[in-house]
Amino acid sequence: MKRVTSDIVQYTLSPLHKPVVKVKPGESVVVETIDALCGAVTEDSPLEKLLTEGRVPDYFNPVSGPIYVKTARPGDTLVVEITDIKVGVKGVTVNFPGIGGLTASYLQENLSPRTKISHIENGIIHFPMENGRKKIEIPVDPLVGTIGTAPPIEAQLSTKPDKHGGNMDCSDVTKGSKLSLPVFVDGALLYLGDVHAVQGDCEICGVAVETPSETIVKVDVIHGRSINWPRIATPSEILTVCSSASLEHATKLAFTELVVWLTEDYGFDRMDAYLLCSQVAKARICQIVNERYTVAAKFPRRYF
Amino acid sequence: MKRVTSDIVQYTLSPLHKPVVKVKPGESVVVETIDALCGAVTEDSPLEKLLTEGRVPDYFNPVSGPIYVKTARPGDTLVVEITDIKVGVKGVTVNFPGIGGLTASYLQENLSPRTKISHIENGIIHFPMENGRKKIEIPVDPLVGTIGTAPPIEAQLSTKPDKHGGNMDCSDVTKGSKLSLPVFVDGALLYLGDVHAVQGDCEICGVAVETPSETIVKVDVIHGRSINWPRIATPSEILTVCSSASLEHATKLAFTELVVWLTEDYGFDRMDAYLLCSQVAKARICQIVNERYTVAAKFPRRYF
Amino acid sequence: MKRVTSDIVQYTLSPLHKPVVKVKPGESVVVETIDALCGAVTEDSPLEKLLTEGRVPDYFNPVSGPIYVKTARPGDTLVVEITDIKVGVKGVTVNFPGIGGLTASYLQENLSPRTKISHIENGIIHFPMENGRKKIEIPVDPLVGTIGTAPPIEAQLSTKPDKHGGNMDCSDVTKGSKLSLPVFVDGALLYLGDVHAVQGDCEICGVAVETPSETIVKVDVIHGRSINWPRIATPSEILTVCSSASLEHATKLAFTELVVWLTEDYGFDRMDAYLLCSQVAKARICQIVNERYTVAAKFPRRYF
Amino acid sequence: MKRVTSDIVQYTLSPLHKPVVKVKPGESVVVETIDALCGAVTEDSPLEKLLTEGRVPDYFNPVSGPIYVKTARPGDTLVVEITDIKVGVKGVTVNFPGIGGLTASYLQENLSPRTKISHIENGIIHFPMENGRKKIEIPVDPLVGTIGTAPPIEAQLSTKPDKHGGNMDCSDVTKGSKLSLPVFVDGALLYLGDVHAVQGDCEICGVAVETPSETIVKVDVIHGRSINWPRIATPSEILTVCSSASLEHATKLAFTELVVWLTEDYGFDRMDAYLLCSQVAKARICQIVNERYTVAAKFPRRYF
Repeated sequence: MKRVTSDIVQYTLSPLHKPVVKVKPGESVVVETIDALCGAVTEDSPLEKLLTEGRVPDYFNPVSGPIYVKTARPGDTLVVEITDIKVGVKGVTVNFPGIGGLTASYLQENLSPRTKISHIENGIIHFPMENGRKKIEIPVDPLVGTIGTAPPIEAQLSTKPDKHGGNMDCSDVTKGSKLSLPVFVDGALLYLGDVHAVQGDCEICGVAVETPSETIVKVDVIHGRSINWPRIATPSEILTVCSSASLEHATKLAFTELVVWLTEDYGFDRMDAYLLCSQVAKARICQIVNERYTVAAKFPRRYF
Repeated sequence: MKRVTSDIVQYTLSPLHKPVVKVKPGESVVVETIDALCGAVTEDSPLEKLLTEGRVPDYFNPVSGPIYVKTARPGDTLVVEITDIKVGVKGVTVNFPGIGGLTASYLQENLSPRTKISHIENGIIHFPMENGRKKIEIPVDPLVGTIGTAPPIEAQLSTKPDKHGGNMDCSDVTKGSKLSLPVFVDGALLYLGDVHAVQGDCEICGVAVETPSETIVKVDVIHGRSINWPRIATPSEILTVCSSASLEHATKLAFTELVVWLTEDYGFDRMDAYLLCSQVAKARICQIVNERYTVAAKFPRRYF
Repeated sequence: MKRVTSDIVQYTLSPLHKPVVKVKPGESVVVETIDALCGAVTEDSPLEKLLTEGRVPDYFNPVSGPIYVKTARPGDTLVVEITDIKVGVKGVTVNFPGIGGLTASYLQENLSPRTKISHIENGIIHFPMENGRKKIEIPVDPLVGTIGTAPPIEAQLSTKPDKHGGNMDCSDVTKGSKLSLPVFVDGALLYLGDVHAVQGDCEICGVAVETPSETIVKVDVIHGRSINWPRIATPSEILTVCSSASLEHATKLAFTELVVWLTEDYGFDRMDAYLLCSQVAKARICQIVNERYTVAAKFPRRYF
Repeated sequence: MKRVTSDIVQYTLSPLHKPVVKVKPGESVVVETIDALCGAVTEDSPLEKLLTEGRVPDYFNPVSGPIYVKTARPGDTLVVEITDIKVGVKGVTVNFPGIGGLTASYLQENLSPRTKISHIENGIIHFPMENGRKKIEIPVDPLVGTIGTAPPIEAQLSTKPDKHGGNMDCSDVTKGSKLSLPVFVDGALLYLGDVHAVQGDCEICGVAVETPSETIVKVDVIHGRSINWPRIATPSEILTVCSSASLEHATKLAFTELVVWLTEDYGFDRMDAYLLCSQVAKARICQIVNERYTVAAKFPRRYF
């Protein structure tokens, strides 16, 4: 299996980057990723220290790639199956002042920098607590936080989610899921990184349990079929994943795309699809901490 | 057990309404509710017909009550345990032009009025489909869509959610849940209605499977303890439920309140609570179709 | 001329309040108003002191009235001409922690309570400055911050703007303007208060130069003609004034209503009106500090 | 004077574009710009025809440049004085379906494509009207709609406004104004285009009177001084210009930056600056039709 190392990482998803590997449709590839904090935050270098010493990285959220997928052309759809996510032995969580959902709340005054290093073993994250409180044991439930293709003519920061994917922080991008992404340039140019050992809805403090990974993806191409926004197929649900600086708009976009999908691929009457979503659909706020917010609208396969 | 009939319904939650019943803390009461469309939409009177004939009700979302709870005083907290929700034999779903999450989407042009009457029996909703397609069978999973106390000096439409509760459309207000509400006036003045046989996250078309009900609630009062926003305790989670015309703001409010709750009642360090929410909390978009939108932030009890 | 004193003030606009005076269409009335801080903040009782001593009023923004306008019926339009605003000899401005547009900004930590008492004489506001800096002289340019009719069945706090008017804080509600308001109940029930000696766009700190006033209004009724939202006619412009918890939505509503007005009353083709607004319309953000935000869209009369 | 022709145009602002000219601080340069519709819409090729024939350009909003300004380094501020804007003899306005502020309003159903070609002579725009109605004469009041420096590592579409400037559509970027922009890369890399012969607040239909131009700018560099967002100095006001996908956020950002500016450069106490803005500041909604919305907060020089 071909391997993408994390020797070269990027901080934008761009049509101009030179591919690090070329693969054929149907091929799998191992991708090494480093953590979203660039490996800079450690037990010896907590965020508090990095801030004091002015050693904070200029950019965050490094992504590995891009992977060139042969035969993929603008207007096609790239399908990325996540076949494995092997997380590291440590995970980093920080409170970064000015980042996160409580920044503007009445609790904000206490939001000084903080670093939590969790040890990860046997599928358990040992999340450390203050005041001598016992560590909390959280089952590993890994996801690829940032994954996307190159936009058509822009270079977008890897910290942003958009139509090309990017920093969606969607817990459903996990082992066993198939993520579909629009192709805007020849070869699609797939990037990924920002693996989380676990993450809650909204990623409210802006940081999950950030960890390096060895992630295996199998890529495929649907020729001549385009999608507007990323989509995910899991064994039990289909999901649309949309991002907008307005959370309301992201939610409505995701449901609009879901109704379109149900109509085009599953034969539902449009009004039926819409009214039925109002009864049985689920929604996930993936994150509200990046420049655009991400919402996934979900429909259970049991009703097909 | 005392009974509140639906002979008298209200369209606002107001400090000025005369109570229909008075109960003591610890007492249970049966509340009859009519459906949110005032029982006006039936097989013989579909919405299409009501619109054509100009017979649409002036106000929607009738609530039963108010129930006066003895000893409840401003600054107390009212605890409402939902002990049973018995739904009707039919449920109504409509597409009401101008209402709903897709109204402003590029799909909107097709959003003409539509009526679906579902028969409900043996815990199954038989949701009718267009084009001769077979009915879809949806398990009944009932909730009380609108429930709240009287605001302090305003009379608020029953269609709005706010700090006093109201039209939250939260699926977690269901059998076995305990809902806590702020008390603003003597006796608390509890109203409820708008029962849904089932409802998806976001209630995207603006209407669920609307049904009359016989709902049993047991009320209690926590004296001298106030809360800012409604809270729910289920066997597996604790939830805060906040509403705002900005979905982003509602979400951030809900997490702010959740962090406060974890800190005050469960002994978490504030920063721990915040960083942990980012890893294990869930969020539900209850609805994005009322004047204010409602979000519930959830923390699993397994980590207590 | 009849006179409304400020002996009785209200904190909601409600269909249930007893009118303090009844007037005929075409009649003028003098209305005494007290300042939005209920007269509680003075040189001897600055906000800092009121907060420390727990003497802050429960409710703010008292309004005088309601005035019953004979013959006004639901579905009519009430026209209120502002013929004079006589401001007091002092004006109060405060920074109230938790209120105002910079509350959630990175400047917020410094936002402690502060009180400024301005002396007003000969049409000049003498606004005091810190650090021994000379007072700034601001010309008086008064406006009625809160003015509205009773909503149909709700009682709404006087601090909120909505379709019935209310706390719009629009600088164009000034001497020489004609404000049109929807009528929802018999007699219209007009309330007003919250006069500002001057106010900037957005009212960014949440407080203007708050002052008592003697305001003269002449009321008239347009029978059988309803409007959706308040409208203003000045000698040089026509304006629509819309409020929403989303500033974007308020802006779009205001332009939608402006296009409708240009089409219905001034004979413009709808598309012409829309495209022309894009070239010559102005917009004012009246305030972004109340529960809903208010935007006025303006079209110059010179193009009629 | 050096001249930038419109032979080469760009559709992104990017650190990677090769400069078309290099100038020294203090130097003026003539910049030819083409209209935002790429010159594609004409009397013979109205938008209606281009859409039918599938000949709509892939990208809009071409910008001329970039201009390399010698000695400008990251962390400096670029000052661009607009010394002249000579507009073309025709201006194009269109309604582009799916674009513009009324797209999601209840008026939307009528928003089919439409083209208006205005003749411009002697400082007057002759705006054509439907139904044989006389043309409306609008005085030319030109502005540079899109102007900005290159972002640090991203390439951003020229249709977007951000910290680097871009598609702000601010009517105050006009003859006699000095626009300050952050410098992120060596030489600053200045781009400009999208000149409007006139434009209303909000640019509500998404299109102004789009025209080619010959614009003269004089550039200068303030070394070692950085700004967060664009600023404008006119003879009578100072303005901050901020953009966000939330109009509320853009407004609050603009006032936050204005308070900082008043404090740092004009010696105001921070609280004084804030409270005074609430009395005498103005705000302009520049546009609500691009991916991010733009607001300018203004403070009158008369109070310095």
